[in-house]
Amino acid sequence: MARKITLLVANSLDNFIARPDGDVEWLLWSDEVGKILAKVWKPVDTVVMGRKTYEVSVKLGGGGFPGVTTYVFSRTIKPENAKDVEIISTDAVAFIRKLKQKRGKEILCMGGGEFAKSMFEAGLIDEISLNTHPVLLGSGVPLFLGLSKSVDLSLVECLPIEHGCICLTYRVKKDKSAAPTKTRRKSVKKANKSKKSASKTGRSRR
Amino acid sequence: MARKITLLVANSLDNFIARPDGDVEWLLWSDEVGKILAKVWKPVDTVVMGRKTYEVSVKLGGGGFPGVTTYVFSRTIKPENAKDVEIISTDAVAFIRKLKQKRGKEILCMGGGEFAKSMFEAGLIDEISLNTHPVLLGSGVPLFLGLSKSVDLSLVECLPIEHGCICLTYRVKKDKSAAPTKTRRKSVKKANKSKKSASKTGRSRR
Repeated sequence: MARKITLLVANSLDNFIARPDGDVEWLLWSDEVGKILAKVWKPVDTVVMGRKTYEVSVKLGGGGFPGVTTYVFSRTIKPENAKDVEIISTDAVAFIRKLKQKRGKEILCMGGGEFAKSMFEAGLIDEISLNTHPVLLGSGVPLFLGLSKSVDLSLVECLPIEHGCICLTYRVKKDKSAAPTKTRRKSVKKANKSKKSASKTGRSRR
Repeated sequence: MARKITLLVANSLDNFIARPDGDVEWLLWSDEVGKILAKVWKPVDTVVMGRKTYEVSVKLGGGGFPGVTTYVFSRTIKPENAKDVEIISTDAVAFIRKLKQKRGKEILCMGGGEFAKSMFEAGLIDEISLNTHPVLLGSGVPLFLGLSKSVDLSLVECLPIEHGCICLTYRVKKDKSAAPTKTRRKSVKKANKSKKSASKTGRSRR
């Protein structure tokens, strides 16, 4: 069975993952997000990321991640300049397609823009794990660049956490003709059981 | 006190409000969303929308909304061709700024793109009410066009509903220097109380 690939990223409500200069000072940390990330990382042994995300990671004092293999896709970074990562200069999609079939644990994909777009269009992403922040950045590095096709998703988890952030997990539906699966609404009480009349709803085309 | 203006819209996860041709066949209806919308509409007596949203509304068999005053901002639609709406051909921001100060109930703002952008940049939006659908449309009419400034938000409500949709309410923070307010996590149980070690979290720059 192919290894699961999860796109893991923090975004603004208007779907930017960094300001135009790569700044991510707007990201909010909390113990809650720490616990959630620990759970996401547990089954993972491999990370794949594009050049731009790697450069932001280096700027923040990082590079690769300890205890996992990190592949960075770039035709310009020289392997000898890379920090705890393997630089792959061949086609990212072909490399990751093979990687997905190799023995191993789960894979995290980090980043957005062109890299995420090519991954979505190749059907390589199985899950999307977002930490959506309560801000409209207005401009920056886009999470989703125009895709050539629609991608249907199933909501797996929706968890509001500290600071007004929301951790969202979606599963990518592989077969568009498949019947919609029932959403698991983990950790969330069903609400709005109001008995109020919904008579006004007919006028909304929301 | 100025009348509250809420941006009310349904969006895809990649923040499109319609396909490139205006199609919204991907929108999912449910009794739950009906009840939520009834609550949103209750204190409203006025709707403002841009030309494009109006044209989609007409295409769907609508136009204005019964029982409320609907203003459509357009320099091209002839008032005699308008259906249950008032066509305003002067500057939308100036008109809505005055409208906000007039006596009346709450105002709903519908649409995205240039219209929503000008409203955000003029500081006229008080709340954002989204019904985020589990799909990446890939292309279409954008909800958020590049803003010239960041807009800080407070999460008011996060409510997963049927079909994997999520109803989100954010309040626009008017004073960026103000201390962050504590988010009310209405209708949502705090979860992930796992006692597992978060030791792995240090390696994430999510």
